[in-house]
Amino acid sequence: MKKITIVGAGRVGETTAQILAEEELCREVALFDVREDVPEGIALDIVQTAPFFEFDCAVHGSNDPRILKDSDLVIVTAGFPRKPGMSRADVLESNVRVIDEVTDHILAYAPETMVLMVSNPVDTLTYRVAQRTGWSRNRVFGQAGVLDASRMASFIAQETGFSARDITTMVLGGHGDTMVPVPRFCTINGVPLSYFLPEDRVEAIMERTRKGGAEILALRKNSSAYDAPGAAVAAMVDAIVNNRRRLLPCVALLEGEYGEADIAMGVPCVLGEKGVESILELELNEREQADFTQSASAVRSEIERLRDIR
Amino acid sequence: MKKITIVGAGRVGETTAQILAEEELCREVALFDVREDVPEGIALDIVQTAPFFEFDCAVHGSNDPRILKDSDLVIVTAGFPRKPGMSRADVLESNVRVIDEVTDHILAYAPETMVLMVSNPVDTLTYRVAQRTGWSRNRVFGQAGVLDASRMASFIAQETGFSARDITTMVLGGHGDTMVPVPRFCTINGVPLSYFLPEDRVEAIMERTRKGGAEILALRKNSSAYDAPGAAVAAMVDAIVNNRRRLLPCVALLEGEYGEADIAMGVPCVLGEKGVESILELELNEREQADFTQSASAVRSEIERLRDIR
Amino acid sequence: MKKITIVGAGRVGETTAQILAEEELCREVALFDVREDVPEGIALDIVQTAPFFEFDCAVHGSNDPRILKDSDLVIVTAGFPRKPGMSRADVLESNVRVIDEVTDHILAYAPETMVLMVSNPVDTLTYRVAQRTGWSRNRVFGQAGVLDASRMASFIAQETGFSARDITTMVLGGHGDTMVPVPRFCTINGVPLSYFLPEDRVEAIMERTRKGGAEILALRKNSSAYDAPGAAVAAMVDAIVNNRRRLLPCVALLEGEYGEADIAMGVPCVLGEKGVESILELELNEREQADFTQSASAVRSEIERLRDIR
Amino acid sequence: MKKITIVGAGRVGETTAQILAEEELCREVALFDVREDVPEGIALDIVQTAPFFEFDCAVHGSNDPRILKDSDLVIVTAGFPRKPGMSRADVLESNVRVIDEVTDHILAYAPETMVLMVSNPVDTLTYRVAQRTGWSRNRVFGQAGVLDASRMASFIAQETGFSARDITTMVLGGHGDTMVPVPRFCTINGVPLSYFLPEDRVEAIMERTRKGGAEILALRKNSSAYDAPGAAVAAMVDAIVNNRRRLLPCVALLEGEYGEADIAMGVPCVLGEKGVESILELELNEREQADFTQSASAVRSEIERLRDIR
Repeated sequence: MKKITIVGAGRVGETTAQILAEEELCREVALFDVREDVPEGIALDIVQTAPFFEFDCAVHGSNDPRILKDSDLVIVTAGFPRKPGMSRADVLESNVRVIDEVTDHILAYAPETMVLMVSNPVDTLTYRVAQRTGWSRNRVFGQAGVLDASRMASFIAQETGFSARDITTMVLGGHGDTMVPVPRFCTINGVPLSYFLPEDRVEAIMERTRKGGAEILALRKNSSAYDAPGAAVAAMVDAIVNNRRRLLPCVALLEGEYGEADIAMGVPCVLGEKGVESILELELNEREQADFTQSASAVRSEIERLRDIR
Repeated sequence: MKKITIVGAGRVGETTAQILAEEELCREVALFDVREDVPEGIALDIVQTAPFFEFDCAVHGSNDPRILKDSDLVIVTAGFPRKPGMSRADVLESNVRVIDEVTDHILAYAPETMVLMVSNPVDTLTYRVAQRTGWSRNRVFGQAGVLDASRMASFIAQETGFSARDITTMVLGGHGDTMVPVPRFCTINGVPLSYFLPEDRVEAIMERTRKGGAEILALRKNSSAYDAPGAAVAAMVDAIVNNRRRLLPCVALLEGEYGEADIAMGVPCVLGEKGVESILELELNEREQADFTQSASAVRSEIERLRDIR
Repeated sequence: MKKITIVGAGRVGETTAQILAEEELCREVALFDVREDVPEGIALDIVQTAPFFEFDCAVHGSNDPRILKDSDLVIVTAGFPRKPGMSRADVLESNVRVIDEVTDHILAYAPETMVLMVSNPVDTLTYRVAQRTGWSRNRVFGQAGVLDASRMASFIAQETGFSARDITTMVLGGHGDTMVPVPRFCTINGVPLSYFLPEDRVEAIMERTRKGGAEILALRKNSSAYDAPGAAVAAMVDAIVNNRRRLLPCVALLEGEYGEADIAMGVPCVLGEKGVESILELELNEREQADFTQSASAVRSEIERLRDIR
Repeated sequence: MKKITIVGAGRVGETTAQILAEEELCREVALFDVREDVPEGIALDIVQTAPFFEFDCAVHGSNDPRILKDSDLVIVTAGFPRKPGMSRADVLESNVRVIDEVTDHILAYAPETMVLMVSNPVDTLTYRVAQRTGWSRNRVFGQAGVLDASRMASFIAQETGFSARDITTMVLGGHGDTMVPVPRFCTINGVPLSYFLPEDRVEAIMERTRKGGAEILALRKNSSAYDAPGAAVAAMVDAIVNNRRRLLPCVALLEGEYGEADIAMGVPCVLGEKGVESILELELNEREQADFTQSASAVRSEIERLRDIR
């Protein structure tokens, strides 16, 4: 991949840029942000890590949206972050205006790109971008479940003492309190979690996962999480750039899968060089399906709220 | 870890040494081999890769068994390799004499070390070393299932088109035609294999896995496999060196687990800085247990054969 | 190395912690900070990247200085950062009190550790810690030239178009406007810089290097640089942990080298498992020596200022 | 880069293929060899390392030259290797016939590719391929000095105790006993070698470097070196694939540079996505130039020998 542009040079954007450069996932990383000088300053700081990580990826920043030109992938992290006590939905109205503007920049300057949404509430904003661009669903998708799954995996590692390398987790649904961890598909080197933990511990981990972002926000106080979010975005980019065809939970537009349509939310996807190449429809059990449906309702009510915002 | 000695500077030994040095899994890699000059030559070739892989791990070779001194881990790859058409058991008698001599060197020069057996037939020879040293079972173990599982995973990747990163497999039992792939614990990002492949394809992959070493031997003709075996050994070393507590199938001494005792064979182990820290006893279904028991019989008959060899 | 504690969970501390964990340079990273909850929050965010970077290094944070116990290395990043327009010396008086308190914690809880100073002004504060601990100079040293050299290298890469991998630079002296880039020891794959750039361009790069930190501060506005500083610290830790015996510019206590004594400032050191194992005394030419002496004067006047602060 | 084909599945070819796959330097590695089944067997062994190194690069082998189709880069390692006591020139006549045939396959199936020659004698055979294809000199080049320089660097590391990371070396001229190590451009973190070693030690290292391949051949006995040669080739591929514009000694066609023309031999080149993008003409001192000219004579006499071979 030649060029990736990150919109929004906040903490998540910066962390993502650093990892993309370090891992040389493209030839050029561009940072776009409306704040004067800041994207240039961040780019410069990242470039100065090149002698350590031995990358030759170019990194630069700008306030000019024309920096989006020739992007193969645009990662949108712009928007107002949550403050402690706020839910992801609380930032919806202010962020939808930001995202609409970003979308117009993308349409103007990078009409062939893929779009990876990170700004919150991510399900609703992914839907919004998909609507506004009218692009096919493989090209417009969002990050949520990859991060939630990594949080769940780290909780399991801590609880069981097993290596993070051997733990696989699956989190579906909307990226909020209604998210749906699916312990049936959580394993330690292929062995289901139920072999290692009693049900109440699994339930506790599921609940902590649902509140994972808020937990960090409450501790960090003046900042949301960004180390793991940046790494999660980079993992998705890696799957795309290297055409890995990984099976990852992504925020995707549903067209009947899991009983839902005209909505974007977290489902297991095959992620490769064309973006979301397909959606895997797992047979859910009754509780899982009920939780998924409830999560869909929560996302749908957000989507409804933004219909009135033009 | 300070020092790892590899006994046997054949292809598997060399490949392992290269990876240990590249990944800096210890400060010093020693290669012991009875062939004059060869271990020195290999060590020199590996050392000359240091400027590329940027390692500062020392690598040296010798014909003198005193090179074993101060080893924290000894990896035994010595012995006669299979020729096309030979089974792993065919090399038993010649190799047991080699291994007994190696064991005596270990007892003499590295009495505090852990021993990771690779020479074939690995189950039987691991048992032999355990008997001859009398050491506790966490310190004497073998590589088999990690390689067999990687073969199975690569077959699944090829068959399904999914990334090797998302595929987890489990292979238990003896490291021969009776090995026991357990598809129930084979997953693609946590989702059981049965969601992706029909039963007959799974059976075909299991069968190809059982014959995986012979397949490569037949193609390569004058050499057994060594790229994947070396990488498999290095993966085990990494788990030990970094105290990962990974859940990996290892050849371990059984004391009643899975209904077997006084035998060494492949079972799921927790691998950490003390070696095989524990054995995980999974509940097997009827077929799996039957296959495991049959595999144990095959290993036991080999062990019986070597009782007469002094 | 078992345990590294980072004192100060600001941006540089956090970035350093992330890299140490990612690269598994130790088994346990501890973050100490006086702000309530913040070090715990950062540690949690970092731990949740483990599934992506596949590390099993423990990371945790605390407000309790007892977290320093059993540290093999303490990295001190605490202190007030520069605001735009401030020099590193402007934060001296407030920071010396912070560092004295940190030093007392180190003396109390980690009396066997090495100390890597990062807080600014780093030369003077390294000297202060050395005085207050009375430890031998191999154990108390600072980061400055590794960062300055990486900045200079990135400017050369940009100017010449050559890979960052092939560029080597050397920056000595105090970590401030008097720092001493030595272009004679700056090369592109061993070929001196003068083969590639005219003298005025080299001078311009030297000047930009001296102002490198201020340039980023001016752009970022509400933050000093931290991506490259964190990577620079991690590069030093890597040299120590892996006993690389790298030749790196470090802030070290001088005992007559380069004509200076009773001072700490940047000189080329051999960095290995014992810390600063030796100082390499390069023959400087007249201009280089004059610049070095002038830089020593600037550092010395800072040191004098803090003699009155108890 | 999409596809790289390695011609010759001997030890160097196999080692190169393993590194290209591990480092995911392309999407597809093809191995071409005339021996039946062998390239397929090697490819299979390499593919089975994917679960360990987590690559998704395809690797396959064939006896059919049509496997060369769509290659972006062809690496030629085919030919008869040296036996102990033989010089690289001794294999010239047998190898030129092999290489002519390979060249014809390249012309037929991969007319747009770049060609990286590794087979020995590499200077002469690179010249031969350039003549037979008539392609521009950026597209046809060879590996020699990168390996020789890594050998020299490892000797310096051993002699001085410094990290391999900080040592830079430069070796020009033909890839044989007349090769020209240039100690003036050999540095330890930018500081010339002469600061660290007396002249006689430098001379000894230069002489050992010239004989570096023969030293390993004599020790290994039934095999030339291949670990470092494979890594050297991979380093060149990395520079090309990532468009690094690295300054590396490559075997290149000279058109007057260094006083030579109508010849291929080792000179410092800028290696990037177009192959050898330019040749850097360093000012050599008298002795260096004399050694270079003598080396050119040796290569030229080989080239003359093969003029009669059709």
